[in-house]
Amino acid sequence: MNSSVVRYTLGQVLKIEAALLLLPCLVALIYREEKGLCFLMVAALCGFLGFGMSFFKPENKVFYLKEGCIITSLSWIFLSFFGALPFYLSGEIPSLTDALFETVSGFTTTGASILSEVESLSRCITFWRCFTHWIGGMGVLVFLLAIIPIGGGSQINIMKAESPGPSVGKLVPKVRSTARILYIIYFCLTVAEIIFLVIGRMSLFDSVCTAVATAGTGGFGVMNDSLAGYSSYHQWVVTVFMILFGINFNAYYLIIFNHFRKAVTMEEVVHYIAIILVAIAIIFTRIVNSYANALDALRDTSFQVASIITTTGFSTVDFDKWPAVCQTVLVFLMFIGACAGSTGGGIKVSRLIILRKTIIKEMLSYVHPKSIKKIKMDDKPVEHEVVRATNVFFITFVIIFSVSVLLVSIDGNDLVTNFTAVAATINNIGPGLSMVGPSRNFSHFSVFSKYILMFDMIAGRLELFPLLMLFHPKLWKELFAHYIRKFNK
Amino acid sequence: MNSSVVRYTLGQVLKIEAALLLLPCLVALIYREEKGLCFLMVAALCGFLGFGMSFFKPENKVFYLKEGCIITSLSWIFLSFFGALPFYLSGEIPSLTDALFETVSGFTTTGASILSEVESLSRCITFWRCFTHWIGGMGVLVFLLAIIPIGGGSQINIMKAESPGPSVGKLVPKVRSTARILYIIYFCLTVAEIIFLVIGRMSLFDSVCTAVATAGTGGFGVMNDSLAGYSSYHQWVVTVFMILFGINFNAYYLIIFNHFRKAVTMEEVVHYIAIILVAIAIIFTRIVNSYANALDALRDTSFQVASIITTTGFSTVDFDKWPAVCQTVLVFLMFIGACAGSTGGGIKVSRLIILRKTIIKEMLSYVHPKSIKKIKMDDKPVEHEVVRATNVFFITFVIIFSVSVLLVSIDGNDLVTNFTAVAATINNIGPGLSMVGPSRNFSHFSVFSKYILMFDMIAGRLELFPLLMLFHPKLWKELFAHYIRKFNK
Repeated sequence: MNSSVVRYTLGQVLKIEAALLLLPCLVALIYREEKGLCFLMVAALCGFLGFGMSFFKPENKVFYLKEGCIITSLSWIFLSFFGALPFYLSGEIPSLTDALFETVSGFTTTGASILSEVESLSRCITFWRCFTHWIGGMGVLVFLLAIIPIGGGSQINIMKAESPGPSVGKLVPKVRSTARILYIIYFCLTVAEIIFLVIGRMSLFDSVCTAVATAGTGGFGVMNDSLAGYSSYHQWVVTVFMILFGINFNAYYLIIFNHFRKAVTMEEVVHYIAIILVAIAIIFTRIVNSYANALDALRDTSFQVASIITTTGFSTVDFDKWPAVCQTVLVFLMFIGACAGSTGGGIKVSRLIILRKTIIKEMLSYVHPKSIKKIKMDDKPVEHEVVRATNVFFITFVIIFSVSVLLVSIDGNDLVTNFTAVAATINNIGPGLSMVGPSRNFSHFSVFSKYILMFDMIAGRLELFPLLMLFHPKLWKELFAHYIRKFNK
Repeated sequence: MNSSVVRYTLGQVLKIEAALLLLPCLVALIYREEKGLCFLMVAALCGFLGFGMSFFKPENKVFYLKEGCIITSLSWIFLSFFGALPFYLSGEIPSLTDALFETVSGFTTTGASILSEVESLSRCITFWRCFTHWIGGMGVLVFLLAIIPIGGGSQINIMKAESPGPSVGKLVPKVRSTARILYIIYFCLTVAEIIFLVIGRMSLFDSVCTAVATAGTGGFGVMNDSLAGYSSYHQWVVTVFMILFGINFNAYYLIIFNHFRKAVTMEEVVHYIAIILVAIAIIFTRIVNSYANALDALRDTSFQVASIITTTGFSTVDFDKWPAVCQTVLVFLMFIGACAGSTGGGIKVSRLIILRKTIIKEMLSYVHPKSIKKIKMDDKPVEHEVVRATNVFFITFVIIFSVSVLLVSIDGNDLVTNFTAVAATINNIGPGLSMVGPSRNFSHFSVFSKYILMFDMIAGRLELFPLLMLFHPKLWKELFAHYIRKFNK
């Protein structure tokens, strides 16, 4: 185990967090809020620690997937811990567990909140709350890769651990350039959304907060009623951008380089759009009669479908009151999730396509036991390794999901609450049904359940294995072997 | 495709059904019930059809897994259809869909009923209702293999399709002898239960019906309140026998041949017992306070845990009123199910052991990418093919489960009802929670939902793929190619 690389990279991550914490300071300065000082203090602390940890460069820059996983999961834990301090120190979230829950929920782009009231929060806190979505959406380590040369050709192992989807799609041969392109697309789309929202006369502050929360497919809002209070124009704009941020970013890369046809015929994108349309059709036909105006029904339906499949979690209506079929469809969308290589969570459309093809292949093997056909995607054969990893991912997902439901049920809530609370956190959505419905929040859970749900959020965002690795005792031994040796000398 | 073998075997199955239908005739004779005539008529019909279909022996006796699957799934559909006729013709279940639902539920050992009142049924109908469990428990084709020589060494493909578990455990090299041994163990255990029940002064008729329903891990009872009305002695006897019928029958085979130590240390059996004990411990501590007597709480807990994990579905209490944790534990047990090679349903303990080991292997591959370790069970390496099939089974299971919940939700019932109705049918249990709880029944579902649930019951009993094969259009073409050719001549 290359412990020095782990230490060095974690230090760099803390330095980035220090820099990012200066943004809410700026917001505090603009709105003359004293609470900005909390951010400044934590930024100083992060900067100090980060500087110390990354002072000595690692001699050996080569590292493997295990280091990639450890770096990624520890980074996310560090990030969440220090990111939670301003909430706690400012007194806006008086409990440390709750502050941590809110921050983990932010970075993992979940958007599940323990707050029942967000309009009274100070501006800098509101901004930081939404901005964590933006950082977590594309990933802090991808950001690190984009700006800091680590070299040694091992960075792909970090990218593998942090990026969502069954296989890492490098857009260009160099990891650093890929990371840069991704962040440029991400930034431009976010700015585009801000512009569209401002055009509709949303205040700049609200526009920025809403746009960063949409971009990361997070779901924290600035208003207590999420987006219900904004105009229908704003709701349509957010609907469209939620869908856009749920698309595989490879598609945008293809479009930029004039392969429009190739982008819109990507198997995953076609399925993603098809699922959205079918879900809208089912829900619309069920709820249209309760509306005076069909267009309103269509807007609410489209908004909610886009919000749930992209795992954003904004709401304009209390879908906990919708008919059972509509709720079931939404629960389905929770698990399906967005495209791989997007900022959305869930199982991912491409994984489900691979799973479907695995089942069909299995049926064929009954008919013709000796025929060996490779599973194809976009007319290219999918590597056996990717298929296997997808299968194991799905199995692990279901098992972690089930065990979490069992553990959370100790609180004594009803089955629907427990089931959808875990679904909403492991898939990084935000609201669920019943006691975690869009008009409720997660504050009533016990401290134990909150930690379980935090685990689920990070596990969901990092796609299980990087986080599970932390529970492998052998890795810890290896990680500290270096220091133990030094100490013994 | 060897169509002649399919036709011939289906004919044999119908002949067996004709013979089995004479048993309720005998019951009708003893209790002087006119309705016995319905059984006689259907028996005659089955005998006639069976004789016709198996008149010409197939020239080519060799067949493959695809024929095995087709034979098995068609047999189960035929069996259910003709088995339902007496219910319908006697007028005791006036709707054909309901009669079919009840029979499918019987043969698949599910025990989900559309009847709210069973005590007024005539004796022969009650007996047939319970006896279908016994036939379905070990499998009608396994019975066929035990008594009729098909030869050609291809019978293993029928056994593979009908027997539960990740791999077929032949006890002895010959399929026919294996089938015989299984049925002998099955018969002896059933008789033992009857004796124990009669000793406790249960009437012979009730004892026989209860014992055959326990043996098949079915769950249809003779009383409206399932087993709540019987003495605590009877409840304990049934508890013990439910657990015994959920154990891998290989263990009994080992015990008979004096390998007691090997039998009780079988990894699957150890896990099965451990899960039962843990579940009892969790539920007991939660409900003991609401009982005047701890022993009563322990009895109810043990009974319900045994009933659900073995997928029997008897009840002595309305567990729909238990605290949420207890309900969650029960829902877990529904999916875990009994051991492979038992008469129980569910995913099976051995599959879950393989899945757990798959996940651990995947984690190890992150730590040491080049180490290739085989998954072991009972110290023997598990074939790669079995691991792969287990993974695909689990994925297919989850997907069929999810789609069924979606389709059933069209009825407009609450989420818990839909979720547990599908869980209770695909895992062959019987009662679920909420509107399908132990004090309710399945009659309120729409005809469409009832057919979905019937599909789930058969899919669950045959472990998915044999039934899915029926939806492969190519197989139907192959099946009838033979006759089309004849016709064209």
